[in-house]
Amino acid sequence: MPLTPEQQAEIAALRAETRPTFRPVAPGIERRLHEAVPVLDHGFVRVVDYMGDDAAIVQAARVSYGRGTRAVSSDEALIRYLMRHAHTTPFEMCEVKFHVKLPVFVARQWIRHRTASVNEYSARYSVLDREFYIPAPEHLAAQSTTNNQGRGAALTGEEAERVLRWLREDAMRAYDHYEAMIATDGQQGLARELARMNLPANVYTQWYWKVNLHNLLHFLRLRIDPHAQWEIRAYAGVIASIVRDWVPIAWRAFEDYRLNAVTLSAQAVEVLRRRLRGNGWPSRTAE
Amino acid sequence: MPLTPEQQAEIAALRAETRPTFRPVAPGIERRLHEAVPVLDHGFVRVVDYMGDDAAIVQAARVSYGRGTRAVSSDEALIRYLMRHAHTTPFEMCEVKFHVKLPVFVARQWIRHRTASVNEYSARYSVLDREFYIPAPEHLAAQSTTNNQGRGAALTGEEAERVLRWLREDAMRAYDHYEAMIATDGQQGLARELARMNLPANVYTQWYWKVNLHNLLHFLRLRIDPHAQWEIRAYAGVIASIVRDWVPIAWRAFEDYRLNAVTLSAQAVEVLRRRLRGNGWPSRTAE
Amino acid sequence: MPLTPEQQAEIAALRAETRPTFRPVAPGIERRLHEAVPVLDHGFVRVVDYMGDDAAIVQAARVSYGRGTRAVSSDEALIRYLMRHAHTTPFEMCEVKFHVKLPVFVARQWIRHRTASVNEYSARYSVLDREFYIPAPEHLAAQSTTNNQGRGAALTGEEAERVLRWLREDAMRAYDHYEAMIATDGQQGLARELARMNLPANVYTQWYWKVNLHNLLHFLRLRIDPHAQWEIRAYAGVIASIVRDWVPIAWRAFEDYRLNAVTLSAQAVEVLRRRLRGNGWPSRTAE
Amino acid sequence: MPLTPEQQAEIAALRAETRPTFRPVAPGIERRLHEAVPVLDHGFVRVVDYMGDDAAIVQAARVSYGRGTRAVSSDEALIRYLMRHAHTTPFEMCEVKFHVKLPVFVARQWIRHRTASVNEYSARYSVLDREFYIPAPEHLAAQSTTNNQGRGAALTGEEAERVLRWLREDAMRAYDHYEAMIATDGQQGLARELARMNLPANVYTQWYWKVNLHNLLHFLRLRIDPHAQWEIRAYAGVIASIVRDWVPIAWRAFEDYRLNAVTLSAQAVEVLRRRLRGNGWPSRTAE
Repeated sequence: MPLTPEQQAEIAALRAETRPTFRPVAPGIERRLHEAVPVLDHGFVRVVDYMGDDAAIVQAARVSYGRGTRAVSSDEALIRYLMRHAHTTPFEMCEVKFHVKLPVFVARQWIRHRTASVNEYSARYSVLDREFYIPAPEHLAAQSTTNNQGRGAALTGEEAERVLRWLREDAMRAYDHYEAMIATDGQQGLARELARMNLPANVYTQWYWKVNLHNLLHFLRLRIDPHAQWEIRAYAGVIASIVRDWVPIAWRAFEDYRLNAVTLSAQAVEVLRRRLRGNGWPSRTAE
Repeated sequence: MPLTPEQQAEIAALRAETRPTFRPVAPGIERRLHEAVPVLDHGFVRVVDYMGDDAAIVQAARVSYGRGTRAVSSDEALIRYLMRHAHTTPFEMCEVKFHVKLPVFVARQWIRHRTASVNEYSARYSVLDREFYIPAPEHLAAQSTTNNQGRGAALTGEEAERVLRWLREDAMRAYDHYEAMIATDGQQGLARELARMNLPANVYTQWYWKVNLHNLLHFLRLRIDPHAQWEIRAYAGVIASIVRDWVPIAWRAFEDYRLNAVTLSAQAVEVLRRRLRGNGWPSRTAE
Repeated sequence: MPLTPEQQAEIAALRAETRPTFRPVAPGIERRLHEAVPVLDHGFVRVVDYMGDDAAIVQAARVSYGRGTRAVSSDEALIRYLMRHAHTTPFEMCEVKFHVKLPVFVARQWIRHRTASVNEYSARYSVLDREFYIPAPEHLAAQSTTNNQGRGAALTGEEAERVLRWLREDAMRAYDHYEAMIATDGQQGLARELARMNLPANVYTQWYWKVNLHNLLHFLRLRIDPHAQWEIRAYAGVIASIVRDWVPIAWRAFEDYRLNAVTLSAQAVEVLRRRLRGNGWPSRTAE
Repeated sequence: MPLTPEQQAEIAALRAETRPTFRPVAPGIERRLHEAVPVLDHGFVRVVDYMGDDAAIVQAARVSYGRGTRAVSSDEALIRYLMRHAHTTPFEMCEVKFHVKLPVFVARQWIRHRTASVNEYSARYSVLDREFYIPAPEHLAAQSTTNNQGRGAALTGEEAERVLRWLREDAMRAYDHYEAMIATDGQQGLARELARMNLPANVYTQWYWKVNLHNLLHFLRLRIDPHAQWEIRAYAGVIASIVRDWVPIAWRAFEDYRLNAVTLSAQAVEVLRRRLRGNGWPSRTAE
C-alpha cells in the first residue's frame, strides 16, 4: 500500500472542496487531480496540478497564425494540423505536475528526459523507507536471446523462486545494515549520504515532476514503446491515461500521427512505390 | 489604445464568472488574470494562466528534503532559505503564461531568454497592424557619452522634433508601401513573408510567453536592471508587479537576496576585511 | 561582397598554417574551416570551429551500449541503427560553431531554435552597416493563392520594379535618417538603442551560432523543407553541404531516415494495408 | 586501478602523435587530453575532446559588442568584465567532453545538471563490472549533528570496521547474486535490465559528458562547494584543475567573481553601510 495515512488524509482534504478560479478548467483531469494511481508494488502516480487544455493549444496557435487560421474552422482540425506538421510549440502551452513514487532504476531512466522540472526526495537529508520493488512472477522475465536489451518469457520453477528470494533477502539485509549504520544509539552513526549507497536500485524514491505537454508526449512516445523496460512502461501507461482525459483531442492526434504512425525510410518508400506502380498505382503518389 | 473591442469583450467574458477547480488557487494573481496592463504606446501585458503559488515552492522543497525540513518551521523561512542558498529547483514548480504586445526590437532582446515557450504572431501568415512604437518625448534619450550601451538626457528642441518626425514618417511610409505591395487588386501582390521586411523594428508584434518562476525571476533580474534598455524595463516592471501579487513571499526573498543584494569580488572582500579589522572588526568575520 | 578586407585577411591568416592537436580531426570540414560561403546578396556562412566526427558518434554509442554493440560490426551500420531508432543522444556529441551574416527577418526565424548558443552583434553598442537584403528578381515572389504561408510565381514587369524600388528607397532613407539621428556633430545624437528601431527587417546582422549535431539536424530538417521561407532555406542549404562534408555517414543516415523518409498516419497505414492485401500482400506486413 | 589494459593502450595510441588542424588550439588542455586522472577508488576523469579557449570567449564577445568593445583593450580585461557583469553567453562558446567513471550515487547527483549531453553505459545492454566504491577510512564520516545534509568526524574503531565490512560484504554478495541470476548455463537467465536492480548505489558506471564552459562553471560552483557531498567534490576538483589549464583567464575571473566572491543580502548591506558610515565611511558608498 503505497500511501501513508497522512497522505491519504491530505488527498481527501484536497478533494473535499473546489475553489473558484478565473483560469480555464479541464474537466477530464479535474476528476483525477490528487488521486494516487498505484503502479508496481509500492509506487504511484498523482496529478498535483495542471495548466491549460485542448483550447490552450488552439489559443496559442491562433496567435501565431493570426487571421490566417480562420480558414481552419474547427479546433480539432487545427490541433490535428499542428500535430501532423510537427508545429510543436503550441503544445508547450499546457503544463502538468505529477507526484511519482518509483524505484531508483526507473528514476534513472526517467531523468534522462532533461526538459522537465524535478524535485526528488533527498537521501542526504532524510531516511529512505524500507520499500523495494520485487517483480510479480509474471514480470520476472528472462533475458531475450535475440535482443540485447529485451526480455523473453517469464522465469519459472526453482529459478524464479531463487531469483525472488535473492532480491528480497539482499534488499532486506541491505536495509537492515543501512538502518544499523545510521543509528546513533551507542555509536556515532554513519552520514546518511554515505549509508544510502548500500541500498540497491530497486529501493523506492519519489519526486515531483513538472513538464509541458510537448515534452510529455515525447516522453510517452519513447516510454510506452514495447522496447522500453516494462517497469517504466507501467508508469507511462498511467500517465498516458491521464493525458487522454486531460487533452482528448491532442491525444487522438498524437495516436494517429505519432504512436500509430509508420515512418518509411527513403529506401522503403522506393520499394513501395515500385510495388504499387506495378499494381497500377500512378507514379509519385505514395509520398 | 492597444485592445480591440473583440479583445475587450473576450477579457470581460473571461472575468465574468469563475469556474470551480481542485487546483491550488493564488488569490493575488487571480485578481489580475486576463486584464491587459498598458505598456508603452500600443503594448500590453496580460496574465493568461498560471500554476502554483508560494505553497507549491514549499511543497516541492519538502519532498526534496523530506523529514529534514521539519526543522525549518515556517513556509517563509524555508522559501528564504532556498533563495539564499540558490536551491532553485523548487521555484521551477510555478508556471505562468503571458500574452504580450511589444515592438519587434524589444521582442528581439526578450527572445534571448531561451528557457521559455513562445508562440508569436506570424507575419508570414497574417498582415501586421499599422502600429509603431514612437517614444514619448521624455524617453527620446541621447546616446550616453560615458557608456556605449547607455542613454543620456532626453533630446530637446528641434533635434527632438526632427527625430520624432522621421520615426513617424518613415514608419508610415514603410507601412503604406507594405500595404501597397501585398495588395492584390490589379496586381499579383507580393508574398507577405517578403513584404514584412520593409517594416521597421518599432512595429508591434505579439506573443504568448510561458515560463517557470525560476527562469522568470532570472529574466526580471536582468531586465529591470538600470542597464537594460528602458523599453524592455517597462515590460519587466509590469511583470514584476504581477509576480509580487502572485508569490509575495518568494518575491520578497528575491528582492533581499538577488535584486537588492550586493556581490563583492574576492578582491573587494579583502579590502573590506582589512578596513573593518583596522576598525576593531575581528578577523575573518566579513564572510 | 560581404567580407571586409580585414575579415578576408583574418581568414587568410587562419588558413595559412595548421597547428598540431591530439584531438580527433574531421578532414571534410577542415577543408572548409573559416572560409565564408556567400548567401543572399550580402550574407555568408563560415565554420569557425567544430568538435567530433562520425567516429565520435560511434564512440559515445559504444559507451552506452557497452559490449552489447560489438554485434553491430561496422560504424556505418551503428550510426544508421541509431538514426533509424531515434537514439539521438550520441549525435549530441558533435558540436559546430558558425559565423553567420543574415538579414534580421531571417535571424528572427532562426533564433526560435532555442537549443543553441548565440552571440549577436549588438546595435545598442555599435552602429549597423548600410546593408539590406533586396531579393533577386527571380525570388520576388507573389503571395500564394492556395497557401497562407507560401509563395507563388515571381512578380513581373512594373509591379516587380515598383516593389524593388520601394524596398531600396525605403531602406536607404531609413538608413540616412538612422545615421543623421545618431550623428553628434552639432547635436546631442539619439541613443543607438533607439535609433536602430527605424531600420527595416531586411537590414543585415551577424552572429556566432554554436549547436550540437542533433539539434543542427533538427534545424536543417525544418529549414531546408520547401515550406520554410526561401531566404532561410538558402542558409540551411549551405550548412547542409558543410554537414555532409563533416559527418558523411551521419548525413546519409539523416537523408534516408528523416529528410527523404515518409511518415504515414495510422489512417494511411490502414488504407495502404487494405490496398496491398487486396493485391496479395500478407496482412500486417506493412508496418 | 581503474583502467583496463585495452583502455591504456587506446590512450597511448591517442597521445602517440598529433594531427594538424586549422582550428584554434588550447595548449594547456592539449597536455591533458585523453589521460585518465584517478578519482576515488575505481573512478577517473578524462578529457576526450574540447572546442575553444580564452580567445573564443573574446571573439564571441567582440561580435556582440562590435566596435564598442575596442575600448576594453586587453582580452583579460574583457573576460573579467563579462564575468563580473554576468554576460554569460560568450562562455557558452567553449565546449568540453569528458569520459568519467563514477559510482551510481554520484551519477545521480551529477545528472541533475540538465544542460549537458550524456551517454551512459547501459546495464540493460551490458553487464556491469564488479567494482564498488568503498570509502577510505578518513572519509567514512559520521552524520553531522548540526547539519541535516552534512558530515562530522570520521568513524573510528569497531564502528568503522563494521561499516566497512557491511559495505564490502553486501556489495560482493549482491554482485554474486547478480552474476548468478543472469547466468545462462543450466537456466534461462534473468534479463539484465532486471538483475541490475539488485546492485547497490556504490557500483561504478561510466559516461561521456559534454558541456559548455558556462554550464560547466555553474556545475563546478555548486559541486566544489563545501556543502556538496565529498565524493562528487572529488570529481569537481579534478575537472576544476583541467578547466584552469584550459582557459586560465576565464578561470581566474571565475575565482574572483564567483567562487571567492561574497554576496550580501539587502539587510546585510544595510548593516554594513551603517557600520562603515559610523567609522567615517561616506554614505551610499558600499554598493
